[in-house]
Amino acid sequence: MAKINMRQYFDYESCAYTYLLFDPYNKKSVIIDPVLEQFERDMETVKKLNLELIGILETHVHADHITGAFTIRKKTGTPIYYGSESGVQGADFMLNDGNCIHVGQFEIKTIHTPGHTKGCVSYYTCGMLFTGDTLFIGGTGRTDFQDGDPGTLYDSVTKKLFQYPEDTKVFPAHDYSGTMHSTIGEEKKWNPNVGENIDKDKFVTTEKGKNRVYPKKIDIAVPANLKCGEE
Amino acid sequence: MAKINMRQYFDYESCAYTYLLFDPYNKKSVIIDPVLEQFERDMETVKKLNLELIGILETHVHADHITGAFTIRKKTGTPIYYGSESGVQGADFMLNDGNCIHVGQFEIKTIHTPGHTKGCVSYYTCGMLFTGDTLFIGGTGRTDFQDGDPGTLYDSVTKKLFQYPEDTKVFPAHDYSGTMHSTIGEEKKWNPNVGENIDKDKFVTTEKGKNRVYPKKIDIAVPANLKCGEE
Repeated sequence: MAKINMRQYFDYESCAYTYLLFDPYNKKSVIIDPVLEQFERDMETVKKLNLELIGILETHVHADHITGAFTIRKKTGTPIYYGSESGVQGADFMLNDGNCIHVGQFEIKTIHTPGHTKGCVSYYTCGMLFTGDTLFIGGTGRTDFQDGDPGTLYDSVTKKLFQYPEDTKVFPAHDYSGTMHSTIGEEKKWNPNVGENIDKDKFVTTEKGKNRVYPKKIDIAVPANLKCGEE
Repeated sequence: MAKINMRQYFDYESCAYTYLLFDPYNKKSVIIDPVLEQFERDMETVKKLNLELIGILETHVHADHITGAFTIRKKTGTPIYYGSESGVQGADFMLNDGNCIHVGQFEIKTIHTPGHTKGCVSYYTCGMLFTGDTLFIGGTGRTDFQDGDPGTLYDSVTKKLFQYPEDTKVFPAHDYSGTMHSTIGEEKKWNPNVGENIDKDKFVTTEKGKNRVYPKKIDIAVPANLKCGEE
């Protein structure tokens, strides 16, 4: 069975993952969560493989790095996609829960997964979930800024993402341990924040009790990212 | 068609990749190039997924980090595999070119690819090549220590690895740009060291003209790794 091709990239400074998805036959491609400083690297494969970049897909308004979306659009004309509740100005398409993006013969489905931020979305295609900062490998995104809400995040993960088959691969927006992916089955069973023995009340109480450091780049990144990364 | 499952891991300090391969049905697994400091992380998935680790496969005697092989064997009893020309003492199996390791229903083939070191091997299974320090994404391993030889490395890459189909995925032992894999087709075409416009003489001359820094950890790592990572 044909499967969309995927390349995973890592940015050392922000520990952020970027994903390039493409149909190897007709060369249509999209990039998920590009990082501004990695523009040259990310475009290298697009150019070499002669891909046509038809979409820049953001999972949310990032607080820890500036997105490469604005720069990529400026240099290539590729449209920018955000979740419809992201509050972003200047995106080309605002995605609602269930909206699909067609990449050659493949379909990428948008799943509205608020909680880390109000406008967070995840993307699903070909057995892979790109979960942004909603679900990490053995973790979940913070819920203490940008209209984050722990109860909402718990529901997004357990009622939406955990409905996918156990062998669905989980590709998050970050990882800090050098792990590239896990599966829905593993996160359901072992995720210490939202796994099988953690109910919503416990998650909410734990989240609210956390005393977290203020993100280093938030005051620069969020205003820029609310304009698609225009500085 | 059934495919071996693969997990890729990254060690920030040495920029080294480790790979865990497993048959999801009968749970047999092997680990390629484990890093000593990552023992706990690497064993976590093995334990969680209830895998039976049947082999620790080394691509070569590493000069930039101490292998986790000795520790894993000590704690789990898993045998250690090295290339037969590696000069390593205390390994359980020495692999010759063409030797196969069976991991459940899958077969991993050993390819002797000397040049970075005399005993370097690559491993092939299910459309994936684990190329160690022989072939990097857009690069090749150094040839100036541990019986390295540029002409030999050139032949290993072009006469052995480049014979695999163009869509074969290349998973190296290191990357410094945050890229996880490429393909044989891309390396044949664009690798600046050994790609299509670089002949053997040019590669050898360029390699011999390089004035490289002495690897930080070589005096600790190589003696330890020649004993499978026993410090």
